[in-house]
Amino acid sequence: MEAPLPEPEPLKALIDALRRLPGVGVRSARRMAYHLLQHDVSGATQLSRALADAASRLRHCTRCNSFTESEVCAVCANPKRDSSLLCVVETPADQNMIESSHEYKGLYYVLMGRLAPLEGIGPMQLQFERLVNRALDGQVQEVILATNFTAEGETTAHYLSELFRERGLSVSRLARGVPAGSELEYVDAGTIAWALMERRST
Amino acid sequence: MEAPLPEPEPLKALIDALRRLPGVGVRSARRMAYHLLQHDVSGATQLSRALADAASRLRHCTRCNSFTESEVCAVCANPKRDSSLLCVVETPADQNMIESSHEYKGLYYVLMGRLAPLEGIGPMQLQFERLVNRALDGQVQEVILATNFTAEGETTAHYLSELFRERGLSVSRLARGVPAGSELEYVDAGTIAWALMERRST
Repeated sequence: MEAPLPEPEPLKALIDALRRLPGVGVRSARRMAYHLLQHDVSGATQLSRALADAASRLRHCTRCNSFTESEVCAVCANPKRDSSLLCVVETPADQNMIESSHEYKGLYYVLMGRLAPLEGIGPMQLQFERLVNRALDGQVQEVILATNFTAEGETTAHYLSELFRERGLSVSRLARGVPAGSELEYVDAGTIAWALMERRST
Repeated sequence: MEAPLPEPEPLKALIDALRRLPGVGVRSARRMAYHLLQHDVSGATQLSRALADAASRLRHCTRCNSFTESEVCAVCANPKRDSSLLCVVETPADQNMIESSHEYKGLYYVLMGRLAPLEGIGPMQLQFERLVNRALDGQVQEVILATNFTAEGETTAHYLSELFRERGLSVSRLARGVPAGSELEYVDAGTIAWALMERRST
């Protein structure tokens, strides 16, 4: 939907900039722009400031690679964390989900992506060497691979698993199975198959 | 999905600000923030500038109420436009759609909304008085109501129709009917009913 009307330049620039957000096409971008300008100019100003602020103040934690304002993030700097466990996740959002389970007290490494050869994302782009160095700090005993259970996440886990095992680290992967609280009828067949293969004696 | 992890302050502020965009919840906001910070810092900076720019430079056209950088927008200022026709639309996006049909050479008035009593949007909020004054400039002969064919759009059209007729202006509404290129089998029954009622002799 190209605009056949001569749009004022700042409006066009705003719509273009909004399209750089993931999942936002030209229609949504236009709707967002109109909304902000018509109903929420203070929201536009707030977002403008937040973006500039985040872009200038945030950097990657030198230990776990997640976003932080300081050299080392709050999780890595926490002495109560078990430094013998290193959990590898794709994104900070995944890290949040694991954290919210209250089941894990170790440390993390955030890949900020997953292997995706078709998009040109390989071991170099994800800085696997840096991750391996992190894992070989002498304290880590076990690396827990918590990448997604998608094709790309599985490939990433497989690749990393080889890498760590070669270096004598023990490696584990999150368990696959039927999700808590779910009815078998509504679980997909692939999950049921995995749950059967990995069944546990009680 | 509250973050159980201590998020750095600028990241939290950015996620909060992104949530002010229409249709963006906390998950999407977080995904957008991660994307911008990880893969597109220049996009973040660009968006920040575009927002500040648009918020400070854009205002409403004194004639048609759409967004413009000058006092009067490019459409209203165009002497080739037929000033005897005034087309009332809900949003600039609707105006764009009409413009892209290349069937209309008159002027516009952009309501920037529609009557929605439950949300507290009435004739006052939409500045109907201003619209009436615009239509009574002595040049407008016909007002074409092109609000949406939704319940609220229809209500708005009905209300405006009364308002203009009382003041002796002739008022029309976009035709309802079967969309161009569509097969009857896939058109909803309400549309078919309208198309029958408003059938034209050939």
